[in-house]
Amino acid sequence: MPTGYNGRILRVNLTEGKIGEESPPEIVYRLYMGGSALSLYFLLKEQKPGVDPLGLENKLVFMSSVISAAPLAGLPRYTVAARSPLTGAFGEAEAGGFWGPELKMAGFDGVIMEGRSPKPVYLWIKDGQAEIRDAAKLLGKDTGVAERLIREELGDNRIRVAQCGPAGEKMVRYACVVNELKHANGRTGMGAVMGSKNLRAIAVRGTQKLALADPEKVREIGKKVVELIKEAPLAQNFKKYGTPFFVMPLQNSGILPTRNFQAGQFEGAEAISGEAMTETILVKSEGCYACAVQCKRAVKVEGKYAASPEYGGPEYETVASLGSLCGIDNLPAIAHGNEMCNRRGLDTISAGVCIAFAMECSERGILTTKDTDGIDLRFGNVDGMLEMIRKIAFREGFGDILADGVQRAAQKIGRGAEKYAMHIKGQELPMHDPRGKHGLTLSYATSPTGADHIEAPHDTSFLSETPMLKAAKPAGVLEPTSALELGPRKIRQFVHTQQIWNFFNSLGVCNFAAAPYTAFPLVMLAEAVEAVTGWNTSLFELMELGERTITMARMFNMREGLSSKDDYLPERLFESLEKGTPREKRVAKEDFVNALRLYYEAMGWDPKTGVPTEGRLSHLGLDWLIPKK
Amino acid sequence: MPTGYNGRILRVNLTEGKIGEESPPEIVYRLYMGGSALSLYFLLKEQKPGVDPLGLENKLVFMSSVISAAPLAGLPRYTVAARSPLTGAFGEAEAGGFWGPELKMAGFDGVIMEGRSPKPVYLWIKDGQAEIRDAAKLLGKDTGVAERLIREELGDNRIRVAQCGPAGEKMVRYACVVNELKHANGRTGMGAVMGSKNLRAIAVRGTQKLALADPEKVREIGKKVVELIKEAPLAQNFKKYGTPFFVMPLQNSGILPTRNFQAGQFEGAEAISGEAMTETILVKSEGCYACAVQCKRAVKVEGKYAASPEYGGPEYETVASLGSLCGIDNLPAIAHGNEMCNRRGLDTISAGVCIAFAMECSERGILTTKDTDGIDLRFGNVDGMLEMIRKIAFREGFGDILADGVQRAAQKIGRGAEKYAMHIKGQELPMHDPRGKHGLTLSYATSPTGADHIEAPHDTSFLSETPMLKAAKPAGVLEPTSALELGPRKIRQFVHTQQIWNFFNSLGVCNFAAAPYTAFPLVMLAEAVEAVTGWNTSLFELMELGERTITMARMFNMREGLSSKDDYLPERLFESLEKGTPREKRVAKEDFVNALRLYYEAMGWDPKTGVPTEGRLSHLGLDWLIPKK
Repeated sequence: MPTGYNGRILRVNLTEGKIGEESPPEIVYRLYMGGSALSLYFLLKEQKPGVDPLGLENKLVFMSSVISAAPLAGLPRYTVAARSPLTGAFGEAEAGGFWGPELKMAGFDGVIMEGRSPKPVYLWIKDGQAEIRDAAKLLGKDTGVAERLIREELGDNRIRVAQCGPAGEKMVRYACVVNELKHANGRTGMGAVMGSKNLRAIAVRGTQKLALADPEKVREIGKKVVELIKEAPLAQNFKKYGTPFFVMPLQNSGILPTRNFQAGQFEGAEAISGEAMTETILVKSEGCYACAVQCKRAVKVEGKYAASPEYGGPEYETVASLGSLCGIDNLPAIAHGNEMCNRRGLDTISAGVCIAFAMECSERGILTTKDTDGIDLRFGNVDGMLEMIRKIAFREGFGDILADGVQRAAQKIGRGAEKYAMHIKGQELPMHDPRGKHGLTLSYATSPTGADHIEAPHDTSFLSETPMLKAAKPAGVLEPTSALELGPRKIRQFVHTQQIWNFFNSLGVCNFAAAPYTAFPLVMLAEAVEAVTGWNTSLFELMELGERTITMARMFNMREGLSSKDDYLPERLFESLEKGTPREKRVAKEDFVNALRLYYEAMGWDPKTGVPTEGRLSHLGLDWLIPKK
Repeated sequence: MPTGYNGRILRVNLTEGKIGEESPPEIVYRLYMGGSALSLYFLLKEQKPGVDPLGLENKLVFMSSVISAAPLAGLPRYTVAARSPLTGAFGEAEAGGFWGPELKMAGFDGVIMEGRSPKPVYLWIKDGQAEIRDAAKLLGKDTGVAERLIREELGDNRIRVAQCGPAGEKMVRYACVVNELKHANGRTGMGAVMGSKNLRAIAVRGTQKLALADPEKVREIGKKVVELIKEAPLAQNFKKYGTPFFVMPLQNSGILPTRNFQAGQFEGAEAISGEAMTETILVKSEGCYACAVQCKRAVKVEGKYAASPEYGGPEYETVASLGSLCGIDNLPAIAHGNEMCNRRGLDTISAGVCIAFAMECSERGILTTKDTDGIDLRFGNVDGMLEMIRKIAFREGFGDILADGVQRAAQKIGRGAEKYAMHIKGQELPMHDPRGKHGLTLSYATSPTGADHIEAPHDTSFLSETPMLKAAKPAGVLEPTSALELGPRKIRQFVHTQQIWNFFNSLGVCNFAAAPYTAFPLVMLAEAVEAVTGWNTSLFELMELGERTITMARMFNMREGLSSKDDYLPERLFESLEKGTPREKRVAKEDFVNALRLYYEAMGWDPKTGVPTEGRLSHLGLDWLIPKK
């Protein structure tokens, strides 16, 4: 194998305050490449099963990839990973923005955090150097304040800060990692793991030039991708409306999550749509590192629901989770809620689902105002929703119960509340209802992180007959299927899509920039990896990286005691929607059960237990994960 | 999926003398592409299990591919397929040369032959037209004579003829199909199936221009490949020495099959080497359609062992099977034997193994000259070997027994002869001894056609540390392993190599021109498919085509009653070689059994039965092969 990639990874022992550095052999970079897979490599190699997610022994990995910081649109993401305090399973979340590329330009691919600092600290990384610094003055501060204080202390306004916020300090189980105040490693509670380690932030500044194996080719690909983005209809929609563009198509398909997944259409949808946002509160479309798509929102609201553009603006997931899911059609209030979550470091999806759950419980009489600190938590109560965000972030009163996630909250509340807790493996459902995109049933049920919109692929069926996917160069990987089928053809499409999603997560590719959704063709991604690293690679290798990633996460979860029993859907998803998808289009449970078995078999897993076989592990270069006999 | 490929396939009912024509939907071309996979598609869709391989109901498919006849080096091959009369399993064999591309330029991708003609006939195809013609005068004639008579009858000296020869007419179970007198669809007895149908030949002339989606890109790839071939060390060795180049490396590794696989080194190796051939009897290096490698030999011998260049010259497989395997170091006699096989339409490998088997039986006293028509069949008996070729081809005397293949011959002879019958699934072993390339154990054991050097991949380990493979752009598909390992890493390498070999067989790619061995990079092959068909494709899609091909052949065999019991090795291969690989480097049976299980699991097959799971079939787009319940 040609040599071409050398990288450095920081290892920080917070307990002892020591910082080390290592360079994995090139074969490790080649097999795992970055993000999810490389994080899993370290977690599986080094961490024994069963550690307390919020304890000393859980390792927390921040990982970019071999192509991060290359001057190419669509590659800004990086991963934060650990055992999740929300699910007990593999925890990871990706964020776009600039932090991952900045880390790379500071000379490192990743940081492995170990132990727990005796006092609050942050890590400061600059151009090949790193130090642990005191964070006492950041304690309890909003992310914006903390970021300003760090920049002032270090005297550089261009420092990129990833931090856990007050919610992380309080170990809210779905506390996120907030980057530059607006890009979140949102899911699975990685902010809580930061908090548990007394690690408030990692500040990074990098000015090193990235080594490129073939700079001319990288430039050529970069130019081509920008052209393709200009031509891609979905990319242009993202630029104009951001991800909230999805509100109206989902509303029209009858699967916009509404009132805690009771309905699939929301009477206030237009008011919270991407179109409405662009017309009312949007001040600017923004983008991530080197990206031409510019799907990020910067919004401004004054008055009661004030929101500042420095905290960005709500993504689709947030608009739906704090909006339609809570029966709320007040866009400024949603923007304000989004900012609150970014200030405190809360995952907006889990927060929204927890609040919507409490609202349904309240309407059904399971909760009363006595339980909820006097707040009348009915659907549509804007101020109640916002107040609950605050209470969750600070674990105050009823907020303390919801801060442990909807599964634990429902168990604590009892009285039948569990029926209304919309989660898988303990993680709250994202804002796409499988009842109109049946492939999502597999996606959510098998996602190693629980219900997740980044970890698990979307059902691309709804695009397959549109010019969007046709233009997207599926490279023989995707064929059209109906959104409402769950048979063998869907298995084929699903496994392929899952492979794509997962190599995206390992390489740090954004699915709003790359195929199958938009502009960056899959084959060209392989060319980009080759041009950056010098490896002779192919889409085949990347697709296999995707499968390797899925399989490693599966093995992690098996070690943690999960089993095929954890690949389920909440019962509600087998029921009809109040509005939206009609009864005859529901997912039949027997179809789901059959599809799950076919999926296991398709992956080369045991069809009953869902455990990857020794042969398939060997085939993926993961024979080191075969349990010792 | 973008439209881009329209093709026509001839269907000939020989019983009724009727010719039809059909155009499969583009999705069929996209999923199967040609060769092995597209032949299997028709056999599996249309043919019921259990038909007599030499009977009316066996269909015989001649199939080129969607890229055949594109002006690119390395794509000359086409497939002949049917249920094999030698093995009862899937039968197929590829040939290079010019016939496949010629068929394509005549307007057809393939021909499906059905039934049996009441009298000897040949099929004449020219530029979109086809007719069945009388072949009475060809009966019993050498291939050279038959080709001349056909060309004279049709008045065109440029007609390409594929024919079965007298051995096929006699239904020798390993009769081959001979193209232009020297390129053979050698294995599994496809010539016998032609003979059983009273079909002596298919004559083709095509002058149509091939439709290319992107002619400029095809030209560009074509130029690049010619440059790469000039730079590739192995390609240059092939040009200079042909495939007999392999004699000395295998001799030096101690795995040159000698005296019916008793030894791995032959004292006469140098005399039959590629170097010796080039220095003595070679008159010309030749090539296949559009190929710059020029690995084919044209030799000339005068006198007793006369050989004419119009019949080409012996390949490595022939040099070893008629040479070292029979203890023969007389290169002119081997060349003469090669010509005899080409004249009569005999597979040289199976013929050589049958004769070497008889020689060992003779030396061990199991056979005497009474059994062998007075011929003293000891190792090294040159004239005895040549006389046996003649007797086999015409099913004369003891030749009639060997004409049914070594498995049936051994059963008929009895007296412990079966121990010396070197076959898998009834097909005779090719000339690569797994005792020095352990990956070959899996390759031979799992090959759907039985022991086979084209169907089953070679263990590429021996190249992996050489500049050859390093230069060959493995595209992230192959990693180095040791030739003498059979653990998990070998499973990974083997499955990938098997995928490559099998998509080569479906696309008609030659592994002497393309990576991993030589010059045509794998990723560029995908670009070639895209440039010719207009499909947006990738190496991933081609690798999946490879797996689809393997899986379809497996399903064919399962339907025919084969099981995991048929995935075995002859006992001798677990023993030490007399000379050559030492005892400690043998394949241990328990390692093989374990590797086989890992292989099944890696393929997503049932680890006990080796049957592909419903899920993996679904994943490959083969859900139509899931048995009805």
